[in-house]
Amino acid sequence: METNRLEQQLSFLIECDKMKKILRRTVLMDSSRRETDAEHSWHFALMAMTLLEYAGNKDLDTYKVLRMALVHDLIEIYAGDTFAYDPKGHSDKYERETAAADKLFSLLPEDQGKEFRSLWEEFDAMETPEAQYAASIDRFQPFLHNYRTQGYTWKEGNVHYTQVYERMEILRTAMPALWPTVLNMMKDSVEKGYLLP
Amino acid sequence: METNRLEQQLSFLIECDKMKKILRRTVLMDSSRRETDAEHSWHFALMAMTLLEYAGNKDLDTYKVLRMALVHDLIEIYAGDTFAYDPKGHSDKYERETAAADKLFSLLPEDQGKEFRSLWEEFDAMETPEAQYAASIDRFQPFLHNYRTQGYTWKEGNVHYTQVYERMEILRTAMPALWPTVLNMMKDSVEKGYLLP
Repeated sequence: METNRLEQQLSFLIECDKMKKILRRTVLMDSSRRETDAEHSWHFALMAMTLLEYAGNKDLDTYKVLRMALVHDLIEIYAGDTFAYDPKGHSDKYERETAAADKLFSLLPEDQGKEFRSLWEEFDAMETPEAQYAASIDRFQPFLHNYRTQGYTWKEGNVHYTQVYERMEILRTAMPALWPTVLNMMKDSVEKGYLLP
Repeated sequence: METNRLEQQLSFLIECDKMKKILRRTVLMDSSRRETDAEHSWHFALMAMTLLEYAGNKDLDTYKVLRMALVHDLIEIYAGDTFAYDPKGHSDKYERETAAADKLFSLLPEDQGKEFRSLWEEFDAMETPEAQYAASIDRFQPFLHNYRTQGYTWKEGNVHYTQVYERMEILRTAMPALWPTVLNMMKDSVEKGYLLP
């Protein structure tokens, strides 16, 4: 056994503990506090596993989807969380996240660092069926939180219906069987004042 | 699409948000606070994916291992977290957890409730290679936290070397390539006073 290899893997896993310190905008379903990146990643993975039957593509590599869920936000350890509806935060998002990926994935042995990074890159590019399904769940998770908390973070950010529609629209093709429900929830959110028209 | 089916799945996913409110004994690597069950489940899954090469069995169904990691503690939403070194908590653990499983998994559509429950039961029985690997990681995760925090929860519970040895011993066969390192860490913990001899 290469001790050095194991040491690198343990250093990575220890560094990843910081995901429990990174707060997202999303609040818990009882609105008591913001959720951490670690909590979001777990909820995302559980949701991906529970809602699989709504995926438009029936030949998904579901193991890859779960691995994507587990690593998709790791770069936020250095790059921080960028609020979905903050255009300023998005202007330098790519540079910040690439630098963060260089730093984080190099903690791992080279082969594994490449493997984990490629999962994140594939997720981020949103081109493969797995990445499109994963992106749908990554968006649906905070959407469900917002809906259940009377639009908590939507209200904070003065978010409009069209902004949420644009963000959620990927579900129309990636999760067509879920889309009508999402559409109803968005319309209902405007009616109830969770979301600006 | 069966609306009722989707409603059941969403109710389950909303109920599972409570995993973010259940505190474990384990503290974060910086000792700032206890970790939540949701955070532990994510870290467990990430660790399972990172340390796969140390599994004794090379034919593991790794997709199943990740699904086990995601659901293995869900019953704690109702049954609460039982400290590994608390004999009292363990005396009625089985009854509490079975009742919790009945309640939680019945939120899901019947087929899916059975599927999720059987993942938990398989994990809990620790008989299949997947369950033995998963149990090893489930134990190694708080072990690494304890080692990194100068035995934070071991000290709180006046835990002895033999107690930790017994709990970790499953790694001797399930993760033989990791075992010598674990053994060294345990001995080092006694020397440094993290763990009672």
